[in-house]
Parts: sequence; structure tokens; C-alpha cells
Amino acid sequence: MSTPAVAPDTTGLPPLDTPPPAPDFGPATHLSCRECGARYDLGAAYACIECFGPLEVAYDLSGVTRELIESGPQSMWRYSCLLPVASYAGSEPNLEPGLTRLVRADNLARALGMTGTLWVKDDSGNPTHSFKDRVVAVAQSAARRLGLSTLACASTGNLANAVAAAAARAGQDSVVVIPSDLEDGKVVTTATYGGTLLAVRGTYDDVNRLCSELIGEPLTADWGFVNVNLRPYYAEGSKTVGYEIAEQLGWRLPEQVVAPIASGSLLTKVDKAFRELASLGLVPDSPYAVFGAQATGCSPVSEAFREGRDVVRPQRPATIAKSLAIGNPADGPYALDSVRRSGGAIADVSDEEIVEGIRLLAETEGIFAETAGGVVVATLRALLASGALDPARETVILNTGDGLKTLDAVAGHVAPTATISPDVDEVTAALVDASHERTTR
Amino acid sequence: MSTPAVAPDTTGLPPLDTPPPAPDFGPATHLSCRECGARYDLGAAYACIECFGPLEVAYDLSGVTRELIESGPQSMWRYSCLLPVASYAGSEPNLEPGLTRLVRADNLARALGMTGTLWVKDDSGNPTHSFKDRVVAVAQSAARRLGLSTLACASTGNLANAVAAAAARAGQDSVVVIPSDLEDGKVVTTATYGGTLLAVRGTYDDVNRLCSELIGEPLTADWGFVNVNLRPYYAEGSKTVGYEIAEQLGWRLPEQVVAPIASGSLLTKVDKAFRELASLGLVPDSPYAVFGAQATGCSPVSEAFREGRDVVRPQRPATIAKSLAIGNPADGPYALDSVRRSGGAIADVSDEEIVEGIRLLAETEGIFAETAGGVVVATLRALLASGALDPARETVILNTGDGLKTLDAVAGHVAPTATISPDVDEVTAALVDASHERTTR
Repeated sequence: MSTPAVAPDTTGLPPLDTPPPAPDFGPATHLSCRECGARYDLGAAYACIECFGPLEVAYDLSGVTRELIESGPQSMWRYSCLLPVASYAGSEPNLEPGLTRLVRADNLARALGMTGTLWVKDDSGNPTHSFKDRVVAVAQSAARRLGLSTLACASTGNLANAVAAAAARAGQDSVVVIPSDLEDGKVVTTATYGGTLLAVRGTYDDVNRLCSELIGEPLTADWGFVNVNLRPYYAEGSKTVGYEIAEQLGWRLPEQVVAPIASGSLLTKVDKAFRELASLGLVPDSPYAVFGAQATGCSPVSEAFREGRDVVRPQRPATIAKSLAIGNPADGPYALDSVRRSGGAIADVSDEEIVEGIRLLAETEGIFAETAGGVVVATLRALLASGALDPARETVILNTGDGLKTLDAVAGHVAPTATISPDVDEVTAALVDASHERTTR
Repeated sequence: MSTPAVAPDTTGLPPLDTPPPAPDFGPATHLSCRECGARYDLGAAYACIECFGPLEVAYDLSGVTRELIESGPQSMWRYSCLLPVASYAGSEPNLEPGLTRLVRADNLARALGMTGTLWVKDDSGNPTHSFKDRVVAVAQSAARRLGLSTLACASTGNLANAVAAAAARAGQDSVVVIPSDLEDGKVVTTATYGGTLLAVRGTYDDVNRLCSELIGEPLTADWGFVNVNLRPYYAEGSKTVGYEIAEQLGWRLPEQVVAPIASGSLLTKVDKAFRELASLGLVPDSPYAVFGAQATGCSPVSEAFREGRDVVRPQRPATIAKSLAIGNPADGPYALDSVRRSGGAIADVSDEEIVEGIRLLAETEGIFAETAGGVVVATLRALLASGALDPARETVILNTGDGLKTLDAVAGHVAPTATISPDVDEVTAALVDASHERTTR
């Protein structure tokens, strides 16, 4: 076909017959089906048309060096060259999450009888105090590239905070959909950031299904559901937890890592991050085992692991660990795969053990975790007791959220030592009583 | 006097007649009375024997360079060379606070009609989510040098969290004394970290008086009250807020800074930090104005400023901003001095304005502040309205704490947009209603 003669362009705009430039997703090249490998252009797609498998971002990561990363900002954007984002994504309005503390936890290791070094990757230091700020940051960037002006999500709470805050910071509209029985710390916070907050009478799985149904409705034409139609980009944000652990250890991998399992995405993406770093030669290719932690009240992946199944049977959640209460986890089978391939294990713990885990971490390291962090600490203890996790190996555990959001979980279990009048003698008496109580219990 | 002949030392210990080496407080040289200038050795002293004036740390800061600071850790310990701490203080067990985000707040500036650049120094990113982690870190280091093994404090809540967590992290005992009517977010959290927590029926001023009375009792011989007998060291920790602002701006001072006033210490120490940096040649010696923010329900310093007094008359606090509810602020007169000398101003705002301030910051920048942050935002607005603060000048406001600790303050003012069944039609109806409400209000 010959090109028709056109007048010289004086507008600065591309001529009408030039296709619009592809959106800039940095090193990402396409989307690929995890099940059948079918290939799709980068867009707001999330399920394979051929086989309904989930789509995942594929990359050309050649040219990434430690120096490039180390010269980047003090946030997760230092890993832009490994994410489906434009190089300038970090300088667009966003919460700038990441580069949270990797805390050496000698006291906790001692309390658990571990001889290997133990670390806590403490994501409660993110802007809205959970790791969800990371995934939202990548999804927000994708929404911009794809012209989706409203940021939306289905959430168990932490994601609600992260989406509402990120949208506020960027001057975007947001629509956040949550189960109506969430903790106050998550509902009040989300509502304070503004945007639309819809409380749904039902479980998280009901909320999630509703959001899937909303996609395709005219109402949601310019909505980017961060964890539905933007899920391939969103999920990649979790890789930054793995990158940071490796860089903070001095560019090497730990021997064992324990991650909570909700949808299963975080665990699989930390595994993916470790494999990427090794394959790019950024860290030595040393073996590591990935362990998963669930609450017994919502343990479909742990159950499948225990029973040697590949199929994850949905459960109806009943646990205080609401941020892990996903009864039908989308990435459950992939989490099972990461754990089995790496020689790890999955275990689950009771609500009582979760509270004990929260208290143990706070008392030994001064880190006040939300229930999900309690699940991880208690599961670490259970995995040590069963012999599945080696106490002599270097281990990193993930704390994904903040105890201030789940105060009710511990409120009935802790209290002031004494309530007294402002009088020196009453202080003395209270301390004598407390000391007596400690020595006699 | 001639030295008696002694046997050669084979123990490795210093001979008995050698005085013990002075504790290592880094660049600090002595304590100096702010009122009469009397000079004291570095120790657990806090009030002048001559005139009862407060003691302050004095230094020899020669040799401090930008390069020395920039080569330090990504925490407040990069400023060790400007604090009363040994050079190795940062590597002893502690929470490693500081280097929190300086957030450019263009949306908030626009909402307030400011044309100069506005920044939020967001100290909610500290380990226990308030600036108190900084002051406790310096006090904890001083307690170590002085052999005080129990960390104690009088607290309005944030300090309670910071002391209990820091002590847990270091395996120390702690005794935290609070008014019994504090927010759950502060009481439950503190109790979870462990240690002794005493709730006192009374105000913060009652608690503070009680702690002063406890000093000298045999019971407290090895207690370091971070904000009483370790106060000279503790208070210096607040300087790091000022250092970080200057370094994060590219080694220069802002033109205006707005700080909350509780005891008045934070405001005076930010001012001190700016003056130190200028006198050391680390930043250009440019003029800046310091502004103070109080809640009307506890506004003794604002009242003294308005009435042109040097004397701060104690008040009985009645405000939702409990972390600022100090009716008899120890450093009130010095805060007045910083503000007047720099050409700033002090104002106070109602509880209703505080809630509006919290919401405005959350809605514009995605930062959920505690009541003290609401006080600062609302006071910024009041100072702009009165013409005391210049909307065209570069301004930094301090957010010292986290909204998750003071949820009750906003809980009655925000709510989900709607509570619905998991049904697409109900989502549509809820959004239409919400949109209708927005356009008609």
C-alpha cells in the first residue's frame, strides 16, 4: 500500500495514520500465560483467552547491573530496571515505598533456639505500613500508561489503605471495595484518605468476585483494578521485597525465607526475584528454601501441602489474621510449586499462636507486627519444632504489616502492669507486686 | 604525692588508683546551664545546682563535614558526629530511627493557596511511628554510657511506645509511666512490647511530677528516665529532624518551618540544628522563620506569644491532641525565644480544626497523621489566614506521629461511602448516590 501524500506536519503531533506509540513499560516486553505460554501485548489483560491461565509480565533484563541499582533512589524505584515500569515512574506522584529495614533479630533467634542468623524484613515501615504500597506503586504506574484514571481494588484492608493513599497523593479518584467486617484501623484510615469506599456484606472472596464482575461494565471503563485487571503489573511489585533482601545482605541470597500466604503472590514473587538476581549474575547462585505461613482458620495452601495435593481446595476463612483470609487463593498452586521446588515447607498456626507470635516479636525485637506477622513468627516456631526448617541456616522472615491496624487481636491479652495514683509509694508497691508475680508464675 | 610501688598489672584491668575513664559521649564536652552558664561534667544531671535552670549539652564540633555525614548509615546515626553519643552508638542494639521522608506536598500547597514549595517532614515513618524514636535512641545510648540499665519515662503515649520498643530491642528492662486515659493505640502497643507499664490516674503533668519525685529513691538508682535525668541527651535527638531537612533539601535551610509545641523541645532543637549547620558552614547562613503550633485546648505557649509575655502560664489540658497536652511545658520560654528571634509566630487551633487538618493532609498527600500532625496543618492554615506566614516562601511542616494511634479522633467524622451486598447493581446505585451527593452539597 503506498502512502498518500500528506502536508508537512506543522503541529508537532504525529500524523493521523501513524499508530500511537506503545506505552512505555521499561524492560517489560509482553504478557505471557503462566499455563500455556500464549503471548499478549502489554495492556490491561490478566487472563489467557486460550486457557484462562493467569498472565505474567515477561522482560528483557539485559544490561542490569548492581551499580545501576545502587545509584538509584532510596526507595523501591531503585529496581525500576527490573519492573514493568518506565524509567521515570518513580518521579511521577506516588508514595515512594520500599527500602524498608532488614532487622537482625538476635534476640528472637535466641528465644527460638536458632543458631543461624535470623532477619526480619519489616515492611511496616512503608508509607501506609504494609507491603501493599509496593504493589500499588507498580499498578498505579501501569494505570497511568494505560489511561486508566480511577484506581480501584478488592481488599482485605491493607490494600485499601495503600490504594486510597496512593490515589490521594496523585490526585486520582479511587474506588475501594472491602468486606464490611474489617478492623477499624483499616476502615477509618481508608475513609480518611477520601475516595469512594464500598463496604460489602460478605467475605473477601465475595468482594473479589464482585470486582471481577464489574470489569467490562461501562461504569468501570476507566478503572484500573490494581489486583484484577492490573494484576500482572501489581504482582511484580512484590519482587522488590526479594531484591531488597538480597541487596541488604550485601548482594547474596539467604538460605531460608518464610513468607505469609494470602493469595500466594508475595511468596512466589520473592522466589522469582531471587531466581532473577541469580540468573542475571547479580548474586551468587546459592540454594535457598522458601517456606509458607498460614493461619489454621484459612489454610487451603498449607492443607494442600500437607496432603501432597497440587489442587488447592477453597475454604471459608475464620481467623483473626484477616489480611491472610483468602479462602480461594489465586496463586496457591504457584506458591506450592515454589515451596516444593526449593525444598521448603508450609505450615499453619492457631489464632492463639498468632497472638503469641505478635507478642514474641514485640518483646524480643521491638517490632509490633499485625496478625500476618504473628502468623509468620508462630509458623517459624512450628517449622523449627517439626524439623522442616533448619535452625542453623540463615533465615529471613517477612513482616508485611503493622500491629496498629490489628490492635483488637492483642487488646484482650495485654494490659498495663498496674493503674495507680500519682504517688511514689504506689509505684513502689506496684513494682513489688509485679516482681512477685514474675517470680511466682 | 609520690606514687606507691605496685606490682606489674597482669589482669588487663586498670590499677585501682587510676580514675575510671570518662564515658565516651563523642563530640560532647560538658553540660551547661541554659540560664546561668554554669558548667557540669557529662552525667545524669539535668538541672543547675546554682539556679535550677535546665542543662544542655555543649560540644566541640570542629572537623564535621558533609562528606563525613553522607558516608554514614541510612538512619539518624549519620549525624553521630553532631550528637552526644560515641561514634559506635549506632551499632549498639537500637531501633535505628530517622532519615524519614521529606515529602513535597504540591497538592496541599495548592489547597492552601501557597505559591512557595511546601514540604512535609513525615516522622510517622520511624520504627514506632513517631519522632520519639529519635530522642529515645540518644537517651538509650547515654543510659549505656552512664550504667543505667532500666529505661524509664513519663509519657503522653508516643514516648511510651518508643521507650518500651527500644528497651525490648536492646534486652533492657523498662518502666513506662502514662496517664490512664490515653488512646488504645498507645496503651495496647506499649503493653505488647513488654516491660513495666504504669497507668496513673491524672494528667501528664501529674505523671511528670511523679517521675521527678522518683529520682533519688533507692528504687530508681539504675533507672534512666529518658525525659527527666537523661533529658539533656534525649532532647538533642530532636536536632536530627533539622539536620535531615537541611540535607534532604540539598544542604540548605528552608525559609519557614512549622513545628508542634508540646514541651517546646522539638521546636527549639530544630532551630538549634539549623544554627549549628550554618555556623559550621555545612549550609549557607540564610534567614529562616520558626513557627509554633498548639491545640487551643492546651495552648500555654501560644497564649504567651499572643499576649507578648515571656512567662508561660500553666494550663489544664483539654484537647484531642493528647501528644501535645503538656500544660506546663518545660521548654516553653525557649520556644518563644526561637520564634521571636527568627521572626516567626505561634498560633493554636480547635479540636474541629485539628480533625479537618488530619483529613486535608490525608486527602491531598496520602499521609495519615496523628492529632499533632492535624494541629500543624490547621495551624499552617491559620498562620496563612492571619498573614503571619508567607505563602510564597519555601515551608517545611513537621508531622511527628501516625494517625493509626489516634483513630478515635477521626472515627466519628469518616465512614464508608456505602455498605452494600456483593452485587453489580448495588455498586452502580451506590456510585450514583455518591456522585449526586457530591454535586448537591
